[in-house]
Amino acid sequence: MSGILYGVGLGPGDPDLMTLRAYKLISNAKVIAYPLLDGGESFARSIAVNMIPAGAHEIAMNIPMTTAREPAQKAYDQSATQIAAQLDLGHDVICLCEGDPFFYGSFMYLFARLSARYDVQVVPGVTSITACAARAGMPLAARNERLTVLPGPLPEAELRNRIEGAESVAIMKVGRHLSKIRHVIDDLDLTKYATYIARASLPDEVICPLADAPAKAPYFSIILLTKGTDPWL
Amino acid sequence: MSGILYGVGLGPGDPDLMTLRAYKLISNAKVIAYPLLDGGESFARSIAVNMIPAGAHEIAMNIPMTTAREPAQKAYDQSATQIAAQLDLGHDVICLCEGDPFFYGSFMYLFARLSARYDVQVVPGVTSITACAARAGMPLAARNERLTVLPGPLPEAELRNRIEGAESVAIMKVGRHLSKIRHVIDDLDLTKYATYIARASLPDEVICPLADAPAKAPYFSIILLTKGTDPWL
Repeated sequence: MSGILYGVGLGPGDPDLMTLRAYKLISNAKVIAYPLLDGGESFARSIAVNMIPAGAHEIAMNIPMTTAREPAQKAYDQSATQIAAQLDLGHDVICLCEGDPFFYGSFMYLFARLSARYDVQVVPGVTSITACAARAGMPLAARNERLTVLPGPLPEAELRNRIEGAESVAIMKVGRHLSKIRHVIDDLDLTKYATYIARASLPDEVICPLADAPAKAPYFSIILLTKGTDPWL
Repeated sequence: MSGILYGVGLGPGDPDLMTLRAYKLISNAKVIAYPLLDGGESFARSIAVNMIPAGAHEIAMNIPMTTAREPAQKAYDQSATQIAAQLDLGHDVICLCEGDPFFYGSFMYLFARLSARYDVQVVPGVTSITACAARAGMPLAARNERLTVLPGPLPEAELRNRIEGAESVAIMKVGRHLSKIRHVIDDLDLTKYATYIARASLPDEVICPLADAPAKAPYFSIILLTKGTDPWL
């Protein structure tokens, strides 16, 4: 019998924001896998570090940070091979995923490579956008309002079009795109509705009006913009 | 010292999908509040039922299901008054919320009424859309893809416009709007990309291609539509 591959969402960073199922799977794990970005620290592993059993076998997936496809494809191919070898031995593999595995998460690349041959189960997690909304005290959407989720690396014209027609907007992966995004939001005269949040739920969390955002934003930062919500029902 | 009001997201329905923080808050609660819809069962309470301590004081908030504003406003006013009375006694109040409190959740109406006077903390939860994606094996969005969240009650023309221009779409609160939504998606020739999910993560969960969806959908049903995701990286 092959093992089961679990893609486990860990939530935004505070270990208390992982689900009970994630906690149970991790604290009973024999094999754990997680991404390293460019050989550096693993944010996913840092969230779960106090729950990983001593002696668990760890598969560190070294994913190059590049816009070129081939090196990243090769890294996922290689990681899938390592994971498959454990599954073939009958071992379950717990793959740690920041946030939610299928919401801008890299687990989908392992899912695509392995789900036809193995039992792959996805455990959803709290996404960064609702964690940010909770911390900022900003309801995202109510009743018949629409919510648009946009990645910050999108071209300026595309960001402008999408923001202009939306009620609530969450912009992910702000990072080095901050000044471009600020320019678009300023130009649409929407800065007064926008909040900047970095590393939500972690000890070094930052929450402020977009107008006061620092010049440099980390990769894990978000801008929330809500024009439409009428919280008084 | 006043108590703290916690708006606690419970996730989509499976109690194992609530966060560790939600579990800790509920299992230590002295006062619990939750919505009843039209005096019926409380879905939120049913998710947490095995964790609520014996003897906890319960505030059932009877919210009328109506598109008229005034009766609902009155119900939230009355609930806020009941909760405030407990906070004034120095008791923390744990308000149970299906999914995430600020993602189409009614907790925002209590937040709007009470957060200026009391310490109100929001505990984010797993939303129905990532839970549905996990269960259906459908990655929602990757890299620079956009995700649009649309409530099913939107007018047909509005749904059509929004779906046409989007890569990934999640349509919430399908319920009695199913045939209208199917018509729009069929007309755009997108039915082959669409999956219907009802009561994700619960024992009576339904997942199927939209083409095979039952004629009647419950309120807690969702359609996921992804055109753009290229999971091979």
